[in-house]
Amino acid sequence: MAKGLTPRSENYSQWYNELVVKADLAETSAVRGCMVIKPYGYAIWEKMQRALDDMFKETGHVNAYFPLLIPKSFLSREAEHVEGFAKECAVVTHHRLKNDPNGKGVVVDPDAKLEEELIIRPTSETIIWNTYKNWISSYRDLPILCNQWANVMRWEMRTRLFLRTAEFLWQEGHTAHATREEAEAEAQKMLRVYADFAENWMAVPVVKGVKSANERFAGALDTYTIEALMQDGKALQSGTSHFLGQNFAKAFDVQFVNKENKLEYVWATSWGVSTRLMGALIMSHSDDNGLVLPPKLAPIQVVIVPIYKKAEELAAIAEKANALAADLKALGISVKFDDNDQKKPGWKFAEYELKGVPVRVAMGPRDLENGEAEIARRDTLTKEQMPFEGLAQRIKALLDDIQANIFKKALDYRDSMITKVDTYEEFKKVLVEKGGFISAHWDGTTETEEKIKEETKATIRCIPLDSVPEEGKCIYTGKPSHQRALFAISY
Amino acid sequence: MAKGLTPRSENYSQWYNELVVKADLAETSAVRGCMVIKPYGYAIWEKMQRALDDMFKETGHVNAYFPLLIPKSFLSREAEHVEGFAKECAVVTHHRLKNDPNGKGVVVDPDAKLEEELIIRPTSETIIWNTYKNWISSYRDLPILCNQWANVMRWEMRTRLFLRTAEFLWQEGHTAHATREEAEAEAQKMLRVYADFAENWMAVPVVKGVKSANERFAGALDTYTIEALMQDGKALQSGTSHFLGQNFAKAFDVQFVNKENKLEYVWATSWGVSTRLMGALIMSHSDDNGLVLPPKLAPIQVVIVPIYKKAEELAAIAEKANALAADLKALGISVKFDDNDQKKPGWKFAEYELKGVPVRVAMGPRDLENGEAEIARRDTLTKEQMPFEGLAQRIKALLDDIQANIFKKALDYRDSMITKVDTYEEFKKVLVEKGGFISAHWDGTTETEEKIKEETKATIRCIPLDSVPEEGKCIYTGKPSHQRALFAISY
Repeated sequence: MAKGLTPRSENYSQWYNELVVKADLAETSAVRGCMVIKPYGYAIWEKMQRALDDMFKETGHVNAYFPLLIPKSFLSREAEHVEGFAKECAVVTHHRLKNDPNGKGVVVDPDAKLEEELIIRPTSETIIWNTYKNWISSYRDLPILCNQWANVMRWEMRTRLFLRTAEFLWQEGHTAHATREEAEAEAQKMLRVYADFAENWMAVPVVKGVKSANERFAGALDTYTIEALMQDGKALQSGTSHFLGQNFAKAFDVQFVNKENKLEYVWATSWGVSTRLMGALIMSHSDDNGLVLPPKLAPIQVVIVPIYKKAEELAAIAEKANALAADLKALGISVKFDDNDQKKPGWKFAEYELKGVPVRVAMGPRDLENGEAEIARRDTLTKEQMPFEGLAQRIKALLDDIQANIFKKALDYRDSMITKVDTYEEFKKVLVEKGGFISAHWDGTTETEEKIKEETKATIRCIPLDSVPEEGKCIYTGKPSHQRALFAISY
Repeated sequence: MAKGLTPRSENYSQWYNELVVKADLAETSAVRGCMVIKPYGYAIWEKMQRALDDMFKETGHVNAYFPLLIPKSFLSREAEHVEGFAKECAVVTHHRLKNDPNGKGVVVDPDAKLEEELIIRPTSETIIWNTYKNWISSYRDLPILCNQWANVMRWEMRTRLFLRTAEFLWQEGHTAHATREEAEAEAQKMLRVYADFAENWMAVPVVKGVKSANERFAGALDTYTIEALMQDGKALQSGTSHFLGQNFAKAFDVQFVNKENKLEYVWATSWGVSTRLMGALIMSHSDDNGLVLPPKLAPIQVVIVPIYKKAEELAAIAEKANALAADLKALGISVKFDDNDQKKPGWKFAEYELKGVPVRVAMGPRDLENGEAEIARRDTLTKEQMPFEGLAQRIKALLDDIQANIFKKALDYRDSMITKVDTYEEFKKVLVEKGGFISAHWDGTTETEEKIKEETKATIRCIPLDSVPEEGKCIYTGKPSHQRALFAISY
């Protein structure tokens, strides 16, 4: 286990907090609730961004940029939205500082009070729909398929790096459509894009589902979600896609002339994932030795560590290592040859384990004599001697295998943690003793949902999209139910 | 000339404002001074970002992310910095809104006043050096070579799209070094990276130089700059790189143990370019028909427009067009086949000229019969028939030629607009009658510089790095001078 890293079994939450800092992913800043994303953490986020951005573009979306600040009055336009987002937020009230007449430093200039306060965007539906009003007049202007990569701010009281921070980075897609059907299809399509990304890039299995009314985005008619399960049996909402109906079009008076030459309100979706995905990534795969990263998102996919005593030995190893590095780069694999003379191999082994580098190649004089190297994989912590001949190709195959393996491991775990229950007693027992997702009948009311939450802290994560209709009785009220919902304690 | 676009000769400023909007690059928003960057404009910015980011990484830099908000007191730590940046800025004073007890909507909750006000970053030296304090203790921790892509905000009174907006997008590099020499070399290296990008990607020739004391960044010991010349003879500062000495290290108490085991303050640089580059790009090349984009930054490099009357004709053209598009894509060229039936070819020609698409291919039934197509280049507005055989390769060469040609055109113009003068009379005459850069002797004092600015509005843009020492007399005071400075009216 990594030096100074609390084991997961001892305190999962502390393990997470320590790992984020020790692996150089992020740290807290001088500004309450705002994080610094360190270069190694940001490199992972950049890989996520690139992959997602490519997927958005393949599905016909374009990027744009909208203002950071939102006039206070905009938030009040959509009744539910203001309840959800206007409360805990950063409010800009002045636009100037001046030298403190009574001392050192600067103070707010009372003469520079804004006529209307501005809010740092907690999400951008309002400012974007106010903009779309000028872009849309006819069905020919539709659809609009915009995305933006941006920072947003929600004044959270209790924050945790990546999982819940006042400022975070995200992307928010905002689309406008001529028909309800098209908008609903878009919201579902983007949910599939998110699920595809989570499973095939992050190696994190997710349940695709729809939220209960109670858990919907403020202003949405339907919120779709991907829900992942962390190693401690708690669920993490990892991405959401909202069918907004005509709510924002009505709030900002965005109408268009349809093909029948009639005025109609525009249909909308919005969808987003954020740096919270970093939390999902970390908690899905990592272990007591540190990070375990899926090769597709690892900033360094292969590290080569030389084992030597004399300078001549290093020279011989470096020749082999550089040749291997060149071969790997030619295959599109990122590689680092760590010939830092100040650190011992043992220190490097632990360091790259902590950082989650998927494959480690170690080479000593004897390996060179034998024409081979020691290859260690981070996911299983196993080692194997492999000949230099064809080594780059072998490592490429190994990286694919690691990507598949950590997904399978996470999937097997997740599947083992979905428990069907038919009574409330069973529900509470499973929740305490096992955790994970609990599949149970529910009468469909917010009242029941909230009572279960009050009594057990479990919430409805979603009604899975692939669930089959099934007649049953609500575990709480005994009223008839037509399908199961997925409950869990969540982050 | 494009419909409704004011000619440059009539009103250059109005031409620019109209072009930015008509070409779908950006527009003003509901928030004073903040712009919406529209998808077409953002696509150009993304190409700039990608190219710059690759260059930063090639020179050893990594990306990171630091908080949007800066505690007010941080700004006061560096005496000059606070004068330069703490005055016109967005001040966050509260963290909550509540329902208006006296009516509709929401109001600021007076109970949610922050203990210390937070400023939306106008630049990030202070928050970053406060962070670096925890990252640096030994020379082994140096250098730190971080960059961040971010939004920043400066409360500008008079704003213009891209050129001067309250919120803008940029990158800011912040590096920390063990020696003065290394930091100075870094500041100059990044200036060369900027110049390389401006000339080889944007096709904008720039003068590399150092700012006079008066025009330095607030807190810098030296500010290096790249200065471009717009078609109206005004200069545009396009990127700056600052040698910050130990000012920020001292302000935030960032010391390290050097190789001699002594405590020393860390040496710093910072450097940035912003969405202002979009303004430089537009004003360097575009004409009365609209945008002229360098092929390397054009979102659409080639557009194919079919000329047809009957559906069968379109089908035959589409077959050829799709084959050409596939060939072009295989060569890494972005292409759009515009078979929109709702618009006439003439409308499309004007539209893609307005949007600055470098190469237009038109194909009609007769062209197909002759086995050729009409190729039009945006930069020279010339047309030529070319055979289908080998057309994609020919277009690839043509794009290279356009990139080179618009750079040469801009360079010839810029070179013709650098005028050496030796008297103040001449200086004022050239400024009024010709504009452009004026190379003149100056006595090196801020006093003289400010008097010249007051009387003529011209400022010292820089002392060019490649200028040769030359004895002369200051045009204003007649005092001895050892080198010429470059003056201009600037944006």
